[in-house]
Amino acid sequence: MPSSSSPLVIDGLQYCRWSREVFLHAREGGVDAIHATIGYHESFQEVVHNIVAWNKLFAENSDLVLHARTLTDIRQAQASHRTAILFGLQNCSALEENLGLIPILFDLGIRFMQLSYNRQSLLASGCTEQNDGGLTLLGQQAIREMNRTGIVVDLSHASERACLDALTRSERPVAVSHAIPSFWHKTPRSISDKVLAALKDNGGLLGLSLYPYHLKDHSNCSRESFCTMVARLVERIGIDAVGIGSDLCYGQPDSVLAWMRQGRWSKPQAHGRKGAEEPPPSFPPQPLWFQDNRNFPALQEGLLQAGFSQKETEKIMGENWARFFQHALSHQDNTKA
Amino acid sequence: MPSSSSPLVIDGLQYCRWSREVFLHAREGGVDAIHATIGYHESFQEVVHNIVAWNKLFAENSDLVLHARTLTDIRQAQASHRTAILFGLQNCSALEENLGLIPILFDLGIRFMQLSYNRQSLLASGCTEQNDGGLTLLGQQAIREMNRTGIVVDLSHASERACLDALTRSERPVAVSHAIPSFWHKTPRSISDKVLAALKDNGGLLGLSLYPYHLKDHSNCSRESFCTMVARLVERIGIDAVGIGSDLCYGQPDSVLAWMRQGRWSKPQAHGRKGAEEPPPSFPPQPLWFQDNRNFPALQEGLLQAGFSQKETEKIMGENWARFFQHALSHQDNTKA
Repeated sequence: MPSSSSPLVIDGLQYCRWSREVFLHAREGGVDAIHATIGYHESFQEVVHNIVAWNKLFAENSDLVLHARTLTDIRQAQASHRTAILFGLQNCSALEENLGLIPILFDLGIRFMQLSYNRQSLLASGCTEQNDGGLTLLGQQAIREMNRTGIVVDLSHASERACLDALTRSERPVAVSHAIPSFWHKTPRSISDKVLAALKDNGGLLGLSLYPYHLKDHSNCSRESFCTMVARLVERIGIDAVGIGSDLCYGQPDSVLAWMRQGRWSKPQAHGRKGAEEPPPSFPPQPLWFQDNRNFPALQEGLLQAGFSQKETEKIMGENWARFFQHALSHQDNTKA
Repeated sequence: MPSSSSPLVIDGLQYCRWSREVFLHAREGGVDAIHATIGYHESFQEVVHNIVAWNKLFAENSDLVLHARTLTDIRQAQASHRTAILFGLQNCSALEENLGLIPILFDLGIRFMQLSYNRQSLLASGCTEQNDGGLTLLGQQAIREMNRTGIVVDLSHASERACLDALTRSERPVAVSHAIPSFWHKTPRSISDKVLAALKDNGGLLGLSLYPYHLKDHSNCSRESFCTMVARLVERIGIDAVGIGSDLCYGQPDSVLAWMRQGRWSKPQAHGRKGAEEPPPSFPPQPLWFQDNRNFPALQEGLLQAGFSQKETEKIMGENWARFFQHALSHQDNTKA
């Protein structure tokens, strides 16, 4: 049984079709904690129902997983050979225009929330929106409230200006839970050098995505190419600002991808993606070397081969997320508004 | 009994605390139709409940008012000495991120919808938002759907860029239901010369507000000052593009004003209004010459005194809205999406 000081393996984002099989894979891959997306465009009540469904999963798989709200919970999961699941949202739809729902969502276990998802939200512009208005006035207030409450501001899918605005304003470390740097592969979702620099200054963390559309050469991206990119990234922003946010979505049908992009309802022909070369919405195959949660050791091996020390590799594989959670998830007084 | 060709008196926006007294005033003032706001930041279901409450008002005051969905309904109201009430929304919150609710709202009688209210919405930036991103990608789709369905795109409270974007994109005439031109009095809500010109080109209509914060000299604004402004405006955009949208809110408590500005929930200290000189949120007293619906004849008198002919005055007092409704409210095929 590992001691409480064993290095943690943590994945900064997944949206799998959750099942006992996925949890068994996570155990096989030695994954101690996963930030799981439990809502995109869902209303508040729909998110509550998603939590109800999760509670059923937790009850049925209590030998494999537990619901984590703190770093202590994650260490408890590790000590009992289980995987800790942290809840997060990939858009702010569940707020339903009401910032008063932020502490309510915290009470329900939400620990991450994106300000926007590709398009304009009430809080911020998204990375594929036509006009980039950055952070809105309500978005400024939302960040203050998320900082106060202890919900991580997640800038994945936000626009360039929204990232820079939020990084200036957030008083707690900010995460980009799942993305890749644009110096390696340029997509609307990639993180610019400017945002990387601001993220470093903020004490924030970039979780590196292994979603094929994000990867250079997509499904054919080699482990060496990915791990060399990690080395170049660490040269720029330091070893402490880099983690994994695999964006594993395995088991999800393609209809889910269309829904992610279109929101609750918009015209099907407009996904809000830039560029005519954009592939139709279907999930691409994962690279052969990173198929699912069982491949975390292979990723770790690749990082070692790319020249990282054991200690550095442990930081990237989860210890950085652990340190981040220590600062980001500590709950502050919830009564002072 | 007036013939069906009698000139119509139409008010392009009111948000009174509706009661039999208000309806009696409307009859006394000879107001044939009022676009009544039935929702700001309300969810879809809250709007439905507001309609239920309106249906009770209609039933209890069927001698004074009726619910209008078309110009024919307005003429019917006039012929039976009643006031026609058209429903509208001052924000897009009731869509709940789902453009599929646009034809549903049409079926429920909604005939106007603003793209935003002061702040950023999912469709467009508002006039007091910090960064003006204009119309969003979803906003472009919403306009197409509103055009198709027959809900008027109302640009009151929208940002400068959102107005210009929407005026470029809308294939039907667009309304600014309640505002004043910035050449007369400059506020975040005033309409710039550039937007006025685009509105004229679009065949749209500006309903002139009599809400004291919009008026030059606020509550002390004289009828002469107001009517001279109308004359200057007509010189710029022509007699056909100008109507009344009084923004009468009488009977509403100040708490409603705070709610209008803050939305469902934001921090009370931030109303999103520009400028430190902004008064605290309380309803100002109306100018003495325009207190309530009984004063429409006094307004008509003022326009005649300002040099408008009888025919021109009739256009401004309602005939322009009538012509606008003929084009804007005609329902198109609701099945082609």
